[in-house]
Amino acid sequence: MDKLRKHIEEITPVSDEEFEYVKTFLTRKRVRKHQYLIQVGDIVTCDYWITRGIFRAFYVDKTGKEHILQFALENSWLSDYNAFFNQTESKMNIVCMEDAEVLCLTLLAKEKLASELHKMEHFFRMKVTRGYTVQQHRIISLLSNNPRQRYEEFESLYPNIVKKVPKKYIAEYLGISRETLSRLYPVSHRHASI
Amino acid sequence: MDKLRKHIEEITPVSDEEFEYVKTFLTRKRVRKHQYLIQVGDIVTCDYWITRGIFRAFYVDKTGKEHILQFALENSWLSDYNAFFNQTESKMNIVCMEDAEVLCLTLLAKEKLASELHKMEHFFRMKVTRGYTVQQHRIISLLSNNPRQRYEEFESLYPNIVKKVPKKYIAEYLGISRETLSRLYPVSHRHASI
Repeated sequence: MDKLRKHIEEITPVSDEEFEYVKTFLTRKRVRKHQYLIQVGDIVTCDYWITRGIFRAFYVDKTGKEHILQFALENSWLSDYNAFFNQTESKMNIVCMEDAEVLCLTLLAKEKLASELHKMEHFFRMKVTRGYTVQQHRIISLLSNNPRQRYEEFESLYPNIVKKVPKKYIAEYLGISRETLSRLYPVSHRHASI
Repeated sequence: MDKLRKHIEEITPVSDEEFEYVKTFLTRKRVRKHQYLIQVGDIVTCDYWITRGIFRAFYVDKTGKEHILQFALENSWLSDYNAFFNQTESKMNIVCMEDAEVLCLTLLAKEKLASELHKMEHFFRMKVTRGYTVQQHRIISLLSNNPRQRYEEFESLYPNIVKKVPKKYIAEYLGISRETLSRLYPVSHRHASI
């Protein structure tokens, strides 16, 4: 849990007592590689903070093609936020790519924590604001960058993901075909391993 | 200002005294059609709440092509949030499409208000969370929908914008060419008027 405290304190300091209280809202869960954290049609009960492992969140279109919304490594928050906040069925899948451990925060717990501790409301606002600006940047990239520019930007922003995640998933994230990515960056390319 | 109170109270009730206090943080500004609220290179000083008018936020790529990030009508918040929160130079333009009036909230004012009134911190968190889920939906649409599906979804989600905004801008928002949109929806189409 020390990592979580550090993570919170990147935004706001918390006292020992406050952090002890925060911990009472969270439950720990182990997730195995290939296991789903959320599946299409699930009522999404939790927001998840990843202490270990890698996940990918993806949407499957009517033709069965996967489109990746997010890769999440440790120290990241992850959920289907539309379904979580509205308590509706998920339209996406979130699957574990490497044995993982997460902390689960139910909607009721999250809102109670935010309501009782102003600094946690502030923390959650700052986290979602950061997520918003990252998504906005991605929309600009999807609208204006060609496949090569998208990949090069991704590589420079997320070197850890490029190292850990198979290229076919990065292609699905960038909205380009695997063939295009392989043509641009053949296997011999130093970052194209896995 | 009554509209602003109603807007806040869609999320959290505020007392007369609290609302009077909120108002002290805001300054009113009139903006004429074609005038820029934010230009590339500006240090972004404010978050804006639109009381009247229409704006579009757009990014210009290296070839000079425009890509629209957002249309904003009355009762919407609008800024370059990356530049606003980091107090860096804007990478986008925000231009007025119809004579408008906005309320301006500086970063210092926004953070002071959020810090002093917990319910305003909650309000801002809920607003940015909503923005996050809308953007996530848009990313799914950009990755998985063809031009026709993108336009039809846009038309069903934002009928007011389709009525008020020229089609060429909607094409720029959807990441499709104006020719494609005109081919799919000729001028005679009932929703294709400006």
